[in-house]
Amino acid sequence: MSEVNEKQMMYRHSMSHVLAKAVKELFGNSTKLAIGPAIDNGFYYDFDTEKSITNDDFSAIESKMKEIIERNEDFVRKEISRKDALEMFKDEPYKVELISELPENETISIYYLGEDFVDLCRGPHVENTKYLRGFAYKINRVSGAYWKGSEKNKMLQRVYVYGFLDKSDLKKYINMIEEAIKRDHNKLGRELGIFTTVDTIGQGLPILLPKGARIIQLLQRFVEDEEQRRGWLLTKTPFMAKSDLYKISGHWDHYKDGMFVLGDEEKDKEVFALRPMTCPFQYQAYLNESRSYKDLPLRYNETSTLFRNESSGEMHGLIRVRQFTISEGHLMCTPDQLEEEFKGCLELAIYMLKTLGLYEDASYRFSQWDPNNREKYIGTEEQWNEAQGIMGRILDNLEIPYNIGIGEAAFYGPKLDIQIKNVWGKEDTLITIQIDQLLAEQFGMEYTDKDGSKKRPYIIHRTSIGCYERTLAYLIEKFAGAFPTWLAPTQVKILNIADAHLDYAIELKKKLESSGIRVELDDRNEKIGKKIRDAQLEKVPYSLIVGDNEVSSNSVAVRKRFVGDQGVKSVDDFLRDILVEINSKALN
Amino acid sequence: MSEVNEKQMMYRHSMSHVLAKAVKELFGNSTKLAIGPAIDNGFYYDFDTEKSITNDDFSAIESKMKEIIERNEDFVRKEISRKDALEMFKDEPYKVELISELPENETISIYYLGEDFVDLCRGPHVENTKYLRGFAYKINRVSGAYWKGSEKNKMLQRVYVYGFLDKSDLKKYINMIEEAIKRDHNKLGRELGIFTTVDTIGQGLPILLPKGARIIQLLQRFVEDEEQRRGWLLTKTPFMAKSDLYKISGHWDHYKDGMFVLGDEEKDKEVFALRPMTCPFQYQAYLNESRSYKDLPLRYNETSTLFRNESSGEMHGLIRVRQFTISEGHLMCTPDQLEEEFKGCLELAIYMLKTLGLYEDASYRFSQWDPNNREKYIGTEEQWNEAQGIMGRILDNLEIPYNIGIGEAAFYGPKLDIQIKNVWGKEDTLITIQIDQLLAEQFGMEYTDKDGSKKRPYIIHRTSIGCYERTLAYLIEKFAGAFPTWLAPTQVKILNIADAHLDYAIELKKKLESSGIRVELDDRNEKIGKKIRDAQLEKVPYSLIVGDNEVSSNSVAVRKRFVGDQGVKSVDDFLRDILVEINSKALN
Repeated sequence: MSEVNEKQMMYRHSMSHVLAKAVKELFGNSTKLAIGPAIDNGFYYDFDTEKSITNDDFSAIESKMKEIIERNEDFVRKEISRKDALEMFKDEPYKVELISELPENETISIYYLGEDFVDLCRGPHVENTKYLRGFAYKINRVSGAYWKGSEKNKMLQRVYVYGFLDKSDLKKYINMIEEAIKRDHNKLGRELGIFTTVDTIGQGLPILLPKGARIIQLLQRFVEDEEQRRGWLLTKTPFMAKSDLYKISGHWDHYKDGMFVLGDEEKDKEVFALRPMTCPFQYQAYLNESRSYKDLPLRYNETSTLFRNESSGEMHGLIRVRQFTISEGHLMCTPDQLEEEFKGCLELAIYMLKTLGLYEDASYRFSQWDPNNREKYIGTEEQWNEAQGIMGRILDNLEIPYNIGIGEAAFYGPKLDIQIKNVWGKEDTLITIQIDQLLAEQFGMEYTDKDGSKKRPYIIHRTSIGCYERTLAYLIEKFAGAFPTWLAPTQVKILNIADAHLDYAIELKKKLESSGIRVELDDRNEKIGKKIRDAQLEKVPYSLIVGDNEVSSNSVAVRKRFVGDQGVKSVDDFLRDILVEINSKALN
Repeated sequence: MSEVNEKQMMYRHSMSHVLAKAVKELFGNSTKLAIGPAIDNGFYYDFDTEKSITNDDFSAIESKMKEIIERNEDFVRKEISRKDALEMFKDEPYKVELISELPENETISIYYLGEDFVDLCRGPHVENTKYLRGFAYKINRVSGAYWKGSEKNKMLQRVYVYGFLDKSDLKKYINMIEEAIKRDHNKLGRELGIFTTVDTIGQGLPILLPKGARIIQLLQRFVEDEEQRRGWLLTKTPFMAKSDLYKISGHWDHYKDGMFVLGDEEKDKEVFALRPMTCPFQYQAYLNESRSYKDLPLRYNETSTLFRNESSGEMHGLIRVRQFTISEGHLMCTPDQLEEEFKGCLELAIYMLKTLGLYEDASYRFSQWDPNNREKYIGTEEQWNEAQGIMGRILDNLEIPYNIGIGEAAFYGPKLDIQIKNVWGKEDTLITIQIDQLLAEQFGMEYTDKDGSKKRPYIIHRTSIGCYERTLAYLIEKFAGAFPTWLAPTQVKILNIADAHLDYAIELKKKLESSGIRVELDDRNEKIGKKIRDAQLEKVPYSLIVGDNEVSSNSVAVRKRFVGDQGVKSVDDFLRDILVEINSKALN
């Protein structure tokens, strides 16, 4: 941690004592204190109060904190025995519980804040509240939190406070949060009718409504076509298999907890599992014929649905789900071809990211095995060193600027992961490119080389775009729901000024649709101003307003999202312009 | 059964006695007889012989049968007591077992054939073998068959014989069988590299290889685009759900045996199941907003993957599988709209069938509930009568010529099934259109009518094309693997005469590919005659031969599948012609 960061964490921690003292003064001594640590964006404190703390109390608490700071009170550290501590905190049951869990003979440190407030604490703290005068803070929210995080315990009230050494940092942070709230796909995606979830279906199993399903259809066609152009052969393999397959691949031993299993190994003759990855399925296409070096590289891609039994706490909107669809590919090649083919996979991924406008948000991680945790992997140390050595050299030759992630490899080989952060700053893997020789061995995959000898191919596992659900989530957040025209579920909204223009509007809709444009007609009996506002709320790229003038001149009054009025255009001119925009996949 | 049919069945049955007598005479009296019924295409007899019957014995058996017929032996019926029957057949253990199972006092009929052969039999038979002289027969095959069909019993030898009153019928039938063998998708589809299956993955879970996956991709895009044009809104819903959802829909009570269940209701907090139908999932999109009569009809379609736990014996190639993908749609409408919308669904299905060339092979089945088997269904008798009455009236108005299938309804409503037969004559449902009000009730689906009252929508469940795997199977059989050009995985094969023409061939390939044509280049060092024959074996629509003449004039020598040499064309002319053929989805 940098010096500035250490200082900031100490100030935040000191502020949490100020918060606790303020709440005690405002809510009375019956308030019991639990814990109050510094966190990434400030600090919090957990309270057990008689009267609930609500948003309405925030300004009073903030004022009281200011008052305490201005009292110039000292933070004073003392060390006392466990026995004295238990006596001192006898009215604070949570502190008593914490003290009781400490070793018998441990010396315990406490911090006074002024003479009338004391807290159990390791410190360090500032010496006097006067140092906190410049500290910028703002109460964020109050929410329920179980004591020690367990549902079996009492629900306490956790007051979260944003806190930064620098006023401008606080401001920037609050702006970021406000923007994140506006862009959060898990909220915005629902509001825009892109997806929903339903309790009776279950967590991590989102329903893509027509707008979301359309975007994924468009992405899928774009990806499949681009991959076909680059020489990938489409496969369509089953979503489940008998345990026999996963025993060969190693998934049964190394990945079973993440899989949905159908049936019971002890009772049933056949046990199936839903697939968490496509590899062992796509290999069957390779194994269907005997292969020669002339057949290589052989590139298989698939729009593949995968299932992972994520735990409840991990699920998040469209980003972390139990079922997802991904363009997964496996490429079999000779050692000579490996670097060139790896580069081709990377270029494909970068092309996708750039086309979608996500490239600048991505970073690279070279995910390696953890040699101290060998039971997580198949293969020997030599094999891992070899595979990682090759991958490292390729990445260096390509001058990829990567971080290293120890223990982030797949169980069968190292990965280049393309990482991306969501609006809340949480990082996930969007795209991955992996080098593997171990599974080729497990499945007995081989090819006949020029000299007639049998050899194992290298395999590159790769995705070319993130899983479609996750990519959609990032696109919602990136564009705050205002998708580029080529991806917008509705590209054009026709707004007729009055009923007299309805026939024209209907004909216009048909004409645009026959060119493949996705059009809606707002024929409600509403003022044109309201229709325009509503179309903008839905983030439709183009609104076409039609009134007397447009009807008589076979034209449309164009309003472009964000830009505003673009004047009157002939229908043919508008159509030509929007088709150019769509075909070029322009980002705005 | 018609009179001719009855006569034919009697002759077949008489012939089975002739077969039994012939085998006894050839294989000796140690041969034990089991049963020998007439069947659809002839008759068979099950034998327990000391020496195996093989294909090499067929001509001897056929000659012996002819000899017996020419002996002009009488068929003579006698009735005897159970006791006498047991005595008479004491050396025929299978007959003894059959007799023992008859009621104590039943009179038993036996048939002599000549004086030295007798069989337990109800008859009737011809009076004398002289009547069998014109009967046309041919031994088909011998195969193992368990006594009484149970694996616990001894394996007998079943001799199958094709048999028809009319020689020309036998000939036609044998031709049909030979054609079926050539077209059988389960054989041809594998030979052409369209699909395969793998033991470690499991039965009913085919792997679509690049050629099959490409055809399904083309079909899927065609279907989705056509549905979009007809006002269907795409959804993408999860492939599994908690049991809670299926309990509401009724699947848990009425369809659980056909479903793959994940988890154990007694042990696990959440039990999931893979979906066998899309309905309850797609309804969630409807339920996501409150609906008004103005929103109806609301048409949702989905390229939906379904899972059905078929038993091992039922699985067949791509026709009956455990996982399949289908364009499944649900349409919510008012009672007024029902007939028009039903008609629209039917028109869509017919359009698909005609485009694919399958229309003439299809027939209609009006599938109704079985009132004597009510526990299979939800809803009351009144509700069923109403739904079936409405559907019957619609079908009659549309003048659909249908058969009635009692007990073939879905558990929630009646169906119009579009049936199709495979090359072996086995009929399956390809497309279904169903009317349902019961599930709208189960899920509390409603809309606000003009008068402000809440009403239940009618729901049409429909597919617009058969499940893609099954449709692909019928297309393979229909076209014997020679797909129409727009669907052919490889549309053009370029054959260079010598290495000197390779550069031109490569440029030609690029040019065609840039117009979206699927092209392969056969650059092997082989004679041009062999390259042409191989391209025809792969059933590629067009072979383009390039030699000196073509290189110098920027042209191609065109060979069309089935048609042969089409002469030399400029590259641009060929490209224009094939694009017209592809865009029109021409059937040949």
